[in-house]
Amino acid sequence: MSLPVCLGVDIGGSKIAAALVDGDGRLLRRTQAPTPAREGARQILRATIDCAQSLLDRAEVAAIGIGAAGVIKDGRVSAATDLLPGWTGVRLIDELTRGLRLDPRIPVRAINDVHAHGLGEAWVGAGAGAGSDSILLAAVGTGLGGCLVRDGQVVTGAHGAAGHIGHVPSVDAGDAPCSCGARGHLEAIASGYGLVRLYHDLGGDQSATDARAVVRAAADDDLARQAVHRSAMALGRGLGGMINIVDPSTVIISGGLSAAGRLWWQTVRGGVAESALPLLRDVEVLPAALGDDAGVIGAARLGHAVVDSRA
Amino acid sequence: MSLPVCLGVDIGGSKIAAALVDGDGRLLRRTQAPTPAREGARQILRATIDCAQSLLDRAEVAAIGIGAAGVIKDGRVSAATDLLPGWTGVRLIDELTRGLRLDPRIPVRAINDVHAHGLGEAWVGAGAGAGSDSILLAAVGTGLGGCLVRDGQVVTGAHGAAGHIGHVPSVDAGDAPCSCGARGHLEAIASGYGLVRLYHDLGGDQSATDARAVVRAAADDDLARQAVHRSAMALGRGLGGMINIVDPSTVIISGGLSAAGRLWWQTVRGGVAESALPLLRDVEVLPAALGDDAGVIGAARLGHAVVDSRA
Repeated sequence: MSLPVCLGVDIGGSKIAAALVDGDGRLLRRTQAPTPAREGARQILRATIDCAQSLLDRAEVAAIGIGAAGVIKDGRVSAATDLLPGWTGVRLIDELTRGLRLDPRIPVRAINDVHAHGLGEAWVGAGAGAGSDSILLAAVGTGLGGCLVRDGQVVTGAHGAAGHIGHVPSVDAGDAPCSCGARGHLEAIASGYGLVRLYHDLGGDQSATDARAVVRAAADDDLARQAVHRSAMALGRGLGGMINIVDPSTVIISGGLSAAGRLWWQTVRGGVAESALPLLRDVEVLPAALGDDAGVIGAARLGHAVVDSRA
Repeated sequence: MSLPVCLGVDIGGSKIAAALVDGDGRLLRRTQAPTPAREGARQILRATIDCAQSLLDRAEVAAIGIGAAGVIKDGRVSAATDLLPGWTGVRLIDELTRGLRLDPRIPVRAINDVHAHGLGEAWVGAGAGAGSDSILLAAVGTGLGGCLVRDGQVVTGAHGAAGHIGHVPSVDAGDAPCSCGARGHLEAIASGYGLVRLYHDLGGDQSATDARAVVRAAADDDLARQAVHRSAMALGRGLGGMINIVDPSTVIISGGLSAAGRLWWQTVRGGVAESALPLLRDVEVLPAALGDDAGVIGAARLGHAVVDSRA
């Protein structure tokens, strides 16, 4: 008898992915489509169902897990950004169960996409070898999100909103505007958009409009180097404080900026060492290992957890 | 047959308490002694054993829980402040088992004292009615400690050090010195000693040497009022950020400063509302309900949890 396979679905702001994943976290087959973000919730669901159906046509699955953009509580999108108009209020589990004409005995679970991402990394990614009993994941892309995993389970929080690590006051952010409307949050300096804004504020090249360009410029542009240093130091100091609050066994950093190279990583680790308590200063800070697959693998893990608990 | 009774022991920096607590969290009998902090670990253990023995002579207990100052991991003090010389390295469970000549079948468990405090409040204190599935407790006394409780269990962290909420960078603390040796931590402004230092820095009455005196002075001294406001705002902003990370169902504030009155509470709540995400702005921030008894009750809860799990 073969091991059960689960379907993991990852509904992000720019793309939708689905994958068949076995009980050891191996990705067996994957499919992907762009997110029709501006076309509204109906079209996003339609594209998701198409992705999922193409895999369900090929294999029997024991359960389905969904990781989706927005705050997810009880299978429903309880809050979402303006980037996904109409997304708030969508009942993900109901919609997918209906849209895929699922046998009602097949369990379906849903969490936030960054939460799924963290669960995947904790399960078979960077956290797998290194004491995955408690993981703090920082996803440093255009924005700054995060996830806590404890004893192999995502800490979703009372409202499904745990892990909003970008939205803590940062001593380094000054009054820089944050995507949430507040000022001085960690995201406003440590994220991709925060880095670009900082570089421009320092008088850097205005034609550099994404973080990758600033990181590239840092090779021979002193202002870009300063911006990368200050952004990374802010992240490290912020993470050090969070380490003191949650005492994770491992910190994992994913997202575009985690590819920013040595200056960035050294500075992040220096910031952590500066603000973590002496006892916690040696907590490992590791790059994520699964890349884009973390979301679908973590989502599938939700399904496997239900199957395991019933075995 | 009567319900099982557990012994809870609370070893703090200034006093040692022990109590018999039933399975509903009712405190049946309590005893207390000063902590001989300067006399070394042997004397602290001796005083603890005396306290505990006086209650064990009166009742059979099903289990014993200990909450003790310092970072506690696997029943051992893995780190402690200079206030308790010789305390680091003490094997609490072994020492109490031997010192009390316990039947080896009686389970003994140990955690940090602020963790025990939080567990007590979550169990039968301020968190009992109000969705105690996840609690963030801030203990605002001379210093600033904390505790996370999830699903009725303390989040101790990978090293037993979770809940060090005083040691996060604070935008309001400037370069004020923290008890941990760092500068600019939340404790350095939001704790009792932080409030006193701030008041003195503002030019306040140097004869006010504890937080209570500053709070009292705030009734008719503008500098004291400013200091209380800034200290409380710093705490609220810091807590708002933590709410975004852990998404608790309830925040509980205990410790001496939680008796500081209306200006302090209003300002703390204002700071929370300023930095918590819109979705989380309405999280309840409640005063602790158990006072000094929270520690022994929470410690006893550790014992009851073992008994319950074996039932």
